[in-house]
Amino acid sequence: MSGRTVRRRVLRLRVADSEPARASERSDLLASEEPLGIRVHGQALTMTMRTPGDDIDLASGFLVSEGLVRSPADLVSIRLCDGTSCGHAGHDGLGNIVDVELRAGLAVTPAARRNFMTTSACGVCGKASTAELFVEQIWDISEDPVRVGAGWLTSAPDALREAQRVFASTGGLHAAGLFGPSGELLAVREDVGRHNAVDKVIGWALRQDRLPLRGCVLLVSGRASFELVQKAVLAGIPVLAAVSAPSSLAADLAAEAGLTLVGFLRGSSMNVYTRADRVAVEDVSSLTPAGRRPAGRDGA
Amino acid sequence: MSGRTVRRRVLRLRVADSEPARASERSDLLASEEPLGIRVHGQALTMTMRTPGDDIDLASGFLVSEGLVRSPADLVSIRLCDGTSCGHAGHDGLGNIVDVELRAGLAVTPAARRNFMTTSACGVCGKASTAELFVEQIWDISEDPVRVGAGWLTSAPDALREAQRVFASTGGLHAAGLFGPSGELLAVREDVGRHNAVDKVIGWALRQDRLPLRGCVLLVSGRASFELVQKAVLAGIPVLAAVSAPSSLAADLAAEAGLTLVGFLRGSSMNVYTRADRVAVEDVSSLTPAGRRPAGRDGA
Repeated sequence: MSGRTVRRRVLRLRVADSEPARASERSDLLASEEPLGIRVHGQALTMTMRTPGDDIDLASGFLVSEGLVRSPADLVSIRLCDGTSCGHAGHDGLGNIVDVELRAGLAVTPAARRNFMTTSACGVCGKASTAELFVEQIWDISEDPVRVGAGWLTSAPDALREAQRVFASTGGLHAAGLFGPSGELLAVREDVGRHNAVDKVIGWALRQDRLPLRGCVLLVSGRASFELVQKAVLAGIPVLAAVSAPSSLAADLAAEAGLTLVGFLRGSSMNVYTRADRVAVEDVSSLTPAGRRPAGRDGA
Repeated sequence: MSGRTVRRRVLRLRVADSEPARASERSDLLASEEPLGIRVHGQALTMTMRTPGDDIDLASGFLVSEGLVRSPADLVSIRLCDGTSCGHAGHDGLGNIVDVELRAGLAVTPAARRNFMTTSACGVCGKASTAELFVEQIWDISEDPVRVGAGWLTSAPDALREAQRVFASTGGLHAAGLFGPSGELLAVREDVGRHNAVDKVIGWALRQDRLPLRGCVLLVSGRASFELVQKAVLAGIPVLAAVSAPSSLAADLAAEAGLTLVGFLRGSSMNVYTRADRVAVEDVSSLTPAGRRPAGRDGA
């Protein structure tokens, strides 16, 4: 496995009016991007271009997001193969593979594979509606009684940025942060792919046996697409906040699933697209989500 | 086909110190995100979540990016089916499909399908190196003699933003702009997916019979991934500029293909990662790419 960043020589140019550009050579850090294959029972399921690191979490979270697993016990084994240790010769360190064995009864069924295809590879034939595009919801998040202070939300992006290790040095990584019911930052993951960063966080939570993530808030550094809403819902997360814009389908599916979707969370303001009842506007100075019943007894 | 934007009611919250948040309901525009399937000879090839509009260009460009077509004559027919006009019942306006018929001899071969899988769906088994990840290069861009003024480059993002129709209103769309050998903006396309915006531009160029895009500059509003470098190379574009960071693999493949890769193109500065010999630092006030031989006689 390679590192998260790669050092490269780069020519930095600065242009001032009609003078020749000032040029300087320097060393720059780039975010690593390499392929990772995910195989279930020896069969290729997907390939993603990701930033190396937390690969087991990434694969675990992907399987949660596709509705294939929901507890650590569903994973009989999950291991990273770098091309030398597991009989897949010739990957020369680029073609890393995570090999997964699911517990009996959790084979990738044709139905699951069909659903999987909705976010990656195959046609939409057979998908009749938005509801069918959506991977079948495992947890009912619509009843999650969490309430999140608007003031706490505005503070969350700073907490995420402070916790990021790579972004500041490369400018090339998306981040996803998972905040717990008391507002604490449970996990932060980064990746060149926004969806990978989210899968890494969700996979971490799965392996900690924390699913469903009742009372939690998922914060992403970029935009909120259909895919990210789907991932949040499949992990049982009731609140998804994005620093940038959501798409139309993200808002549609958030409404359908009962997810609170916050967008343009920047500075002191935000837009709430769905389930605004979970955002508390009174106790804004609170630095924790507010108004919910104690953790573990929220009845969801 | 739906529109590029969708109007939604949104709760806007502003937080000021310890006062209750100010809340106002308003109408907001979101970027549309809907699935598009691409079928070749009746067989599903891929599905992408895209912003509706320019769907034929999107599918055409995708086929170029996968190395399947290189001239308009390769497309015997390409048409958009909305679920009512072509016998695919039950798509209810969401499951749009582009049906493609390639000219004889251009069926999706197992080899092409294997390459296709590298950027979307399948495992990396059988990929031995970076070189194999790369779809086979059709045009030799390494010899393209175009030179681009550093000053012209710093002006290009403004030209792209001025030409964007949707981004300003939604904040949710990536843009790709194709500039011709004289610096003129040939085409601008937008999408919730960065790769789709690029495919739309390349598909437009294919249908205009402009491939390979010698002497052209492709500018993208976000980051530059492996995938975007691959798309530029497959369209014969010698210069890719991104407003944000490239990934490590983007720089690796740009170097391998002889593509000039510019990143962090913001304000008056930029980083040049590969083939900096194409960026002219002297004639920075020029608003056109400079120093190249006349179009069509560049010997590439």
